[in-house]
Amino acid sequence: MTAPPIKHKALLNVDMGEAYGNYVCGPDLELLPLIDHANVACGFHAGDPLIMQETVRNCKEYGIKIGAHPGLPDIQGFGRREIKMSPEELTAITVYQVGALKGFLEMEGVPLHHVKPHGILYGMMCRDYEVARAVMEGIPKGIPVFGLAGTNMEKAANDLGITFWAEMYGDVKYNSDGMLVIDRKKKPWDLEDVRKHVSQQLNTQSVTAVDGSTVQLPVKDYPISICCHSDSPGCLGIIKTTKEVIDEFNKAHGR
Amino acid sequence: MTAPPIKHKALLNVDMGEAYGNYVCGPDLELLPLIDHANVACGFHAGDPLIMQETVRNCKEYGIKIGAHPGLPDIQGFGRREIKMSPEELTAITVYQVGALKGFLEMEGVPLHHVKPHGILYGMMCRDYEVARAVMEGIPKGIPVFGLAGTNMEKAANDLGITFWAEMYGDVKYNSDGMLVIDRKKKPWDLEDVRKHVSQQLNTQSVTAVDGSTVQLPVKDYPISICCHSDSPGCLGIIKTTKEVIDEFNKAHGR
Amino acid sequence: MTAPPIKHKALLNVDMGEAYGNYVCGPDLELLPLIDHANVACGFHAGDPLIMQETVRNCKEYGIKIGAHPGLPDIQGFGRREIKMSPEELTAITVYQVGALKGFLEMEGVPLHHVKPHGILYGMMCRDYEVARAVMEGIPKGIPVFGLAGTNMEKAANDLGITFWAEMYGDVKYNSDGMLVIDRKKKPWDLEDVRKHVSQQLNTQSVTAVDGSTVQLPVKDYPISICCHSDSPGCLGIIKTTKEVIDEFNKAHGR
Amino acid sequence: MTAPPIKHKALLNVDMGEAYGNYVCGPDLELLPLIDHANVACGFHAGDPLIMQETVRNCKEYGIKIGAHPGLPDIQGFGRREIKMSPEELTAITVYQVGALKGFLEMEGVPLHHVKPHGILYGMMCRDYEVARAVMEGIPKGIPVFGLAGTNMEKAANDLGITFWAEMYGDVKYNSDGMLVIDRKKKPWDLEDVRKHVSQQLNTQSVTAVDGSTVQLPVKDYPISICCHSDSPGCLGIIKTTKEVIDEFNKAHGR
Repeated sequence: MTAPPIKHKALLNVDMGEAYGNYVCGPDLELLPLIDHANVACGFHAGDPLIMQETVRNCKEYGIKIGAHPGLPDIQGFGRREIKMSPEELTAITVYQVGALKGFLEMEGVPLHHVKPHGILYGMMCRDYEVARAVMEGIPKGIPVFGLAGTNMEKAANDLGITFWAEMYGDVKYNSDGMLVIDRKKKPWDLEDVRKHVSQQLNTQSVTAVDGSTVQLPVKDYPISICCHSDSPGCLGIIKTTKEVIDEFNKAHGR
Repeated sequence: MTAPPIKHKALLNVDMGEAYGNYVCGPDLELLPLIDHANVACGFHAGDPLIMQETVRNCKEYGIKIGAHPGLPDIQGFGRREIKMSPEELTAITVYQVGALKGFLEMEGVPLHHVKPHGILYGMMCRDYEVARAVMEGIPKGIPVFGLAGTNMEKAANDLGITFWAEMYGDVKYNSDGMLVIDRKKKPWDLEDVRKHVSQQLNTQSVTAVDGSTVQLPVKDYPISICCHSDSPGCLGIIKTTKEVIDEFNKAHGR
Repeated sequence: MTAPPIKHKALLNVDMGEAYGNYVCGPDLELLPLIDHANVACGFHAGDPLIMQETVRNCKEYGIKIGAHPGLPDIQGFGRREIKMSPEELTAITVYQVGALKGFLEMEGVPLHHVKPHGILYGMMCRDYEVARAVMEGIPKGIPVFGLAGTNMEKAANDLGITFWAEMYGDVKYNSDGMLVIDRKKKPWDLEDVRKHVSQQLNTQSVTAVDGSTVQLPVKDYPISICCHSDSPGCLGIIKTTKEVIDEFNKAHGR
Repeated sequence: MTAPPIKHKALLNVDMGEAYGNYVCGPDLELLPLIDHANVACGFHAGDPLIMQETVRNCKEYGIKIGAHPGLPDIQGFGRREIKMSPEELTAITVYQVGALKGFLEMEGVPLHHVKPHGILYGMMCRDYEVARAVMEGIPKGIPVFGLAGTNMEKAANDLGITFWAEMYGDVKYNSDGMLVIDRKKKPWDLEDVRKHVSQQLNTQSVTAVDGSTVQLPVKDYPISICCHSDSPGCLGIIKTTKEVIDEFNKAHGR
């Protein structure tokens, strides 16, 4: 069974502003010219007010669309340690973080484009409908959510009437159940593997999972954005390679 | 020299939502029926997302006007330990905190009424023009600030074209230079002293400082709000007493 | 089947020093005259350096034996939100917290008596052998651990050659699988229920679980300590009642 | 006036373990072969339990003497934002942090060699006798302190009977009053300037301050250790250069 070809232009999103205090994270300024969407950390898993302010200004300068990137309250674990929270608390931490980012956006006069949850929170939303729904109830009216099609993220977004963007991943592997493999620290990639990984997803809407099986990734009619991470070792190469594959794909489809 | 009588109806503001996780602070639900303005903690010196959400809902239910109450990033010190931060950072922490609160206000469909800085940050603003200006540059356009008349708070607000509300204090003493005495933990008050303290301020626009000297508190034509704290020992009595003095004052002036 | 009677004098332990900054927790000074063992919070789920210093001094004054009470790094959740951490990290957070408390003990010249893990960390240890073992690998040589007999805490202590003290609970209910019911906020108790709950555990080494079933709690030959919490509503009454039952039990057995 | 020549072999200390969670700081493993003393961050301004554990093991493997490096409680500001704390609180945060590190040292069976306060806390101790004394009251009996001769650090150590080691700085400039210039982020150095800076201090016990004046740095008979930082840009080059100057100096004096 083959999925019908993707109907939308493929775009590229990267997490940004994931430094903290004196600690640096990815080479944000080198990445900005390459991407379409920035997911800006909101201070819970990374980022702080000064960094958010600077990141929003940098994104504005490059004309990048800005999304909020809320995470679990855990700088030390970079939002990649699972924390069990009640639905009410998940909603509240989303409202708080998205609101904080909107504060900076309003100062700079740029709109909020989307919300993309971070790290293990994203993984928990894929696996658990209640978590997905609770987080999305904290998203301001009219703002789309980025997520993984075929999971509870898609279902919760549809149930709540939230516009859903389907993501594919340039630098994250998949388990055989279609869930992402979220490590606390990213591992390096061979660039040829990145090329194959992205190309397979875009051209076949499927991916080879870590156990060798093939997993379907039907993105249906959703707009799509491919995600890469700025904290992957060698992220600049990964993101350039991903962009090349995306550009070839869009060109082949006349977009 | 006597200041001309206060031209506005005196109102009453109290800090709210200053609990944290399982830790409780003041008896917010008992205070809500008594006050006009709530200054809602924004998670830096007190409050957390769940508490903010609940506090905003409670204030909405009682029809209380809601202000943001940003503080220094210091839960352990309750925002009462001075931290030296750059002007850029002071602006950024204000934008962040006010934005986070606005997230909850927008969810509930209620407007932001004012910004009132918390604790030692307020004291630093009174004493230091650069600090006052930096914090105020983080206040959204059109939103008033509550502060101490005759200090750098008034001056910075005027310089930046921000509407200024003059505060008097029901449960805080003054130094002979007109600055507030900010202790890390509030001390108890005799209610008769509260009555005299508030009455003196409202009726004479002056106050007896801790060294016995008389300090002028000229509130000019600014709208005024008297501040009490929900973490003072015996705060319910203090706030009831303050409200009685305020009501008598307003009645005497036909307001 | 009836367990043989308990061979040791029953003792009473309470968590102490669980305030944080300006936030208060239980009435520690009222509880100290009633108890045998204090489990002193170490700054991760509650407590801070000033509070630890004061708590250690108070315990010393009352001649109370002092244990370390390490928890998950989560003040906001009071160590009652599950966080998934690697075994290495669980060992490290235990070494860190116990070491920090020992700093204060050495200043005051009093020994460390035991280690009692806090909240959901305790619950995770009961359910998961790997977690129990990882935490216990962080306990200094020669120091006993307090835990729940019949769970992975007992097994890991035995495997590692750590002296095990069996606990019973005055103010916590049990599930039918013998695990504790750990709520984020403690609920109030009827004192007559406390009396029955403690008496049943001491005299029958069993307890009526929340589903009405009877769960065996065989404490074997371990020394025992009954635990109550200082953050339970009405904790003073609960602890006095628990102490009465303990005193009667010890008297009946000539201890 | 010339100070008598330094009587002790010059040694080299570097701050270590100043990473946090996923965030990296200096190239610790490359620096270990070059140094004599490591000042290990204790989790307040940098470091976390996992990092401390790993850092202690690395230092042990290289036979480096280990000191505690307590700082102000401020990861976001890297312990370089001044926070006003009471003397009692300064003592308590020192006891806590040194105790936590000792936990790891005891696990590895290595002794605590010294205590070296971090960042702005060090600067506050130099300027303010009360702060210096309060911090030092938290140092375990018999453990030396590293500090700046001619300041309140020297005076408080002597008053409290604590062994004092005099430091000089390879990568920090001095003000004309002999105080260090502590920036929130370190600036890069020209290696030739490092060479001159260290050489001047070692050979003349004086330094050229940022305003061009010459400041005396009389180290008297104290043992000495030159400090460099692992978070300076180009720190490996700075530390190698500093070590060359130190080695030449020691050789010239037959040490």
